[in-house]
This record gives sequence, structure tokens and C-alpha cells, in this order.
Amino acid sequence: MSLSEFELIHRFFRDLGAARDDVVLGIGDDGAITRVPPDHELVTTVDTLVSGVHFDENAAASDIGHKALAVNLSDLAAMGAEPAWATLAISLPEVDESWLQSFAEGFNALAAKHRVQLVGGDTVRGPLQVTVQLQGLVPNGAALTRAGAQPGDAIFVTGTLGDAALALQMIESGATPSETVLGQINRPVARVAAGIGLRDLASACVDVSDGLAVDLGHVLAASNAGATLQLKALPGSVAIVVVGDEQERWRLQLAGGDDYELCFTAPADNVGQIDALARELDLRITRIGEVEKKKGLRLARPDGTLWDMPPGGFEHFRA
Amino acid sequence: MSLSEFELIHRFFRDLGAARDDVVLGIGDDGAITRVPPDHELVTTVDTLVSGVHFDENAAASDIGHKALAVNLSDLAAMGAEPAWATLAISLPEVDESWLQSFAEGFNALAAKHRVQLVGGDTVRGPLQVTVQLQGLVPNGAALTRAGAQPGDAIFVTGTLGDAALALQMIESGATPSETVLGQINRPVARVAAGIGLRDLASACVDVSDGLAVDLGHVLAASNAGATLQLKALPGSVAIVVVGDEQERWRLQLAGGDDYELCFTAPADNVGQIDALARELDLRITRIGEVEKKKGLRLARPDGTLWDMPPGGFEHFRA
Repeated sequence: MSLSEFELIHRFFRDLGAARDDVVLGIGDDGAITRVPPDHELVTTVDTLVSGVHFDENAAASDIGHKALAVNLSDLAAMGAEPAWATLAISLPEVDESWLQSFAEGFNALAAKHRVQLVGGDTVRGPLQVTVQLQGLVPNGAALTRAGAQPGDAIFVTGTLGDAALALQMIESGATPSETVLGQINRPVARVAAGIGLRDLASACVDVSDGLAVDLGHVLAASNAGATLQLKALPGSVAIVVVGDEQERWRLQLAGGDDYELCFTAPADNVGQIDALARELDLRITRIGEVEKKKGLRLARPDGTLWDMPPGGFEHFRA
Repeated sequence: MSLSEFELIHRFFRDLGAARDDVVLGIGDDGAITRVPPDHELVTTVDTLVSGVHFDENAAASDIGHKALAVNLSDLAAMGAEPAWATLAISLPEVDESWLQSFAEGFNALAAKHRVQLVGGDTVRGPLQVTVQLQGLVPNGAALTRAGAQPGDAIFVTGTLGDAALALQMIESGATPSETVLGQINRPVARVAAGIGLRDLASACVDVSDGLAVDLGHVLAASNAGATLQLKALPGSVAIVVVGDEQERWRLQLAGGDDYELCFTAPADNVGQIDALARELDLRITRIGEVEKKKGLRLARPDGTLWDMPPGGFEHFRA
């Protein structure tokens, strides 16, 4: 890129997000310098969004800016980490000032909300892609991981499941999703405060990005355990509970993905504290099943009969 | 990507680089967990390479793997930081096992050499792009920055300048560059040990990626100073010193870019220690000019007459 373009981009990205005391040197040198507080560990995550794959080619730039950070915030939330510093690599077919302005606004609003400071960036000419790398802080040993679920632990999920999948399905069939449902795709909310609140309560945690069945499967694999989920317990929005075909509804909720909720396990003794956290955060937290010694994922129908999740995952559920 | 593709990629990237004691949790969860040693700061840098822009579409995958890490190592070197942890985001048009194998080899060899552990990754389907984010460690307050050059400081550069630009020029004109010259494009060497050795010696430092004139310009701007460079002192390889037209040679050396050498300033009193470091590392370090109070960059011809660098940079040098 030419120098004038460089200056333009520099202007948009120089001061994105919060101004943090632990940033010794921000954007503008060969690297940023930051300080990790004593007795804290660093949690690092990275996600790339590709135009036409992870967002629609006509998506609003501000939504892309929001989502690129939100999907990383969701990963940090699943680790119980407090967000701190981000880097942003953007590939753009051309330098479009209004697009950059809008992207920066979407990114900035979410970054400021979570006290994230942008400390590094690279802008290149190429097909539209956005890679955000995000770092967070957690007291030594307090991070949540996918390992640690114990037989007997209860399984929970925050918020509701299936809206993003429903929205995609409606769009593909030519229907118009409601603003709320569409928001789940364009402006996902990461459960950062819930993740931090769960540090001392959860035994394992994952964010639901690929679909509950797949992501819970990661927890069970890492924890060397199995589980049974109660299908009737799966929390859904008003939009999803009116889906008439219950198998279709479950498919959206278990395999849809893009929910960016937290699925976590916890000893049954912690249920009271988890309820208190839900009230404090004004966040729905639903108990949906139980961790078991027997490997595999079983789905309990409302009538109590069990369905074994086939090895190929939920996509083969109806076959 | 499908799960089987995910597994394939996972296999290639899971164990890239060194196994470090300060990595509490590596690839495979929602985030990695790492520990910064007491009294150390973190240095962060990010760079994206785009196919057809930063590397040839037919470039060997192992060279791309090497270069994606090397350009970031060069940024850390300029900060005097010791490399530690990397994340890698790759966008691939298709999952090609032999390409991935080769890319991983190139990345891995360089990562192992510098004790870098890959702690996070994302692989998406899209046009070929590679974004590496790299973190390094430096004792509190010891990082080198672009600010700090003082009038009277000497200006130095490591290695030689202009080979990458010469190689590109030869390729564009249909000629075949020597292996050595070509290596400067495909397998750049980052001056990591030199950066670390310069922590207590240099007053300011930058890596030469956009061309010496531009990058030294960043140092002068950040340090609120100017400089005169001695054109006859610019170090060149055997390939570059035989370029007959001296203006053309200087243009390649001052504006070519992709050198990945360090340009630094230091008090004249440190010359002896800098010479000792050069001997210790078996690395050419050349004194090429002097920082001055008067703003702007001046180029001293071999006959002693001065050329003012025009504001538009070296591209306008001959006009």
C-alpha cells in the first residue's frame, strides 16, 4: 500500500478500544509492549473471518468489526479470562474510507465496552478477510478449560440456542428473520462476565460456535467422559420455540452453531451459586444434562427414551 | 471446514515449534495459557502475507512458512525481544496435504531455531493468506523502540542492503538471480540475536522492511531528529556492489525493502561494544551515518556534497 493509504488506515486504527494502563507502548512501533500483572497468566486466541464464508458479502462493515472481535471475546469468555489486548490484520481489496470508518466504529464500540485496547495491526491489499488475535488475563491457575468435567457434574448453557442457525435457514429460504434473530448472526454477544463469574464454579467450559453437540463433544473428549442431554431442556428464544417440527428445532439448537453461548459443567453442589450468578448478570443459565462415565453423547427425548448421538455427529441424526 | 479436514490441519499444526516451559496450555482449547516471567514485558507483533502480493503464487510452501514467521521475528528483533509464542491464521482455497506438510516444515524449522511455540491457530477456506502474530519477552524497560535517537548518535545497519530488491528486479526483467540473492526474498533471516545484544547499546532501532530511507525515517520522526547518511558506506553483497549505475545501486539499497536487517542508532561511545557484538555474532554491522538536530534525511555523495531526501521519499530521488 502507498504511504498515503497507510496514513489513512493508521488514523482509523491508532486509538481503537480502551486506553489501558498496562499498555506501555501501543500501535506505531515494530511491536507493542504490554505488562501482565503479577500472579496472572495470559490467555491467547485467534480467529479469522472470511467474506462470503463467515459473513455475507454485503454485511455492514460495522457488523464485521463487531463480529471479528466478538468471536474472540467468546473464546476468552470460555476460558474465564478478562479481555485486554487485541491485534487486527485486515486484507482489503481497496481502501474505502467509509468502509474503514464503519468497521472501526463496530470494532471500537465492542472493544471499549470490554476494555480491550488494539495494540497491533497490519493492513494488506487482498480479498476481504479479518483476523483478530485477542489476549486476556486470568489469575494463575484460574482459567477454565475443556478438561475437568467429572461424572455427576451438571451441564449448563447460557442464553438460548439455535437463533443464528434459524436466521441463516430463513435467509436461505428467502424469508426475512426478525431483528432479534438476525442480531444473533450480525452482532453476537460474548458471555465475558459469565465466564469470569464461572472461574470458581465450573469444572469445564467451551463456547458454542460450531454447535452444542460438537462443542460439548470437545469437553467430553478432553475430560474423558460422556453425557446425556435433555432435549426438552434446551433453551430457545421465542423465535425458535415456535418451530413446529421438534426434530428440526433440536437440529438447529444442537448443530446450528454461531450461538456464542457458554456450555459448562459444574458439580451439582454449585447450582445455587450458578443461579445467583445468573440473577446477578440478568442472564439465562439453563441446566441441560449430566456428565456420565459412559462415553458418548446421549439425547433424552421428552418421553425419556434415549437417542445415541451417532459418531458422525448430528448431521446424521435423522438418518 | 469439515471435521476430517480439521483433524488433518490439527495434525500439522499441533506441535509446531519448540516445547516451552512457560506454555501452560497449548493448541486445542478455546485459548492458550502462557506465563510471562517476573519483571518482564510482553512484545507483540502481527504480519499478514498475501499470495501474489507478499510472495509469488508459485512460491514453495516451506518458504511461505519460513517467511511468515521471519517477518515477525524481524519486528521482535527490532524491539530487542526474545521470541516466545506465535499464533497462525491461514486461509486456504483447498486443503492440500502436501502443501500443508511443506508449509509446516518451513515454519517449524525456524520456530524451533528461535524457541518459538505455536500456541493458537485458525484455518479457514479462502484465498491464500497467512497471518502470524508473534510474542516475545523483554526485561522491564529494556525494549528498543523507534524513539530515543539523539543528535550525535551514530547510525548503523546490520548485514547488507538491496539484495531482495535486486532479486525482484532481475525476476521482473526475466533474469535469474543467484541462490544467495533469491534467498533474501524467500528465506529472509531475522536479526534476533543482534536485537537482544543491542538492548543496552542502541538508542533506537527499526527493522528494514519498507526500505532503509522509509524505516530510518520512522526512527527520525519518532525521535524528533534528522540525519545524514553516507552513500558510500551503505553495505552491499557481492551481487549488489557490481551494479554499475551507482544511483541505481543506492536506490535498491535505500528504497528496495524486504531486507529484514536492523537499522539502529547508538551513542558514539558504544562503537567499541557494537564492534564486539558484531564479532561475537559473526555479523556485519556497518556505521552509515549520524543523527542530527536538523530535521530531514540528507544523503552524502562520495564527493561529500549533500542531497536532500525529497519529502516524497526515494522514489522521487532521480527526478
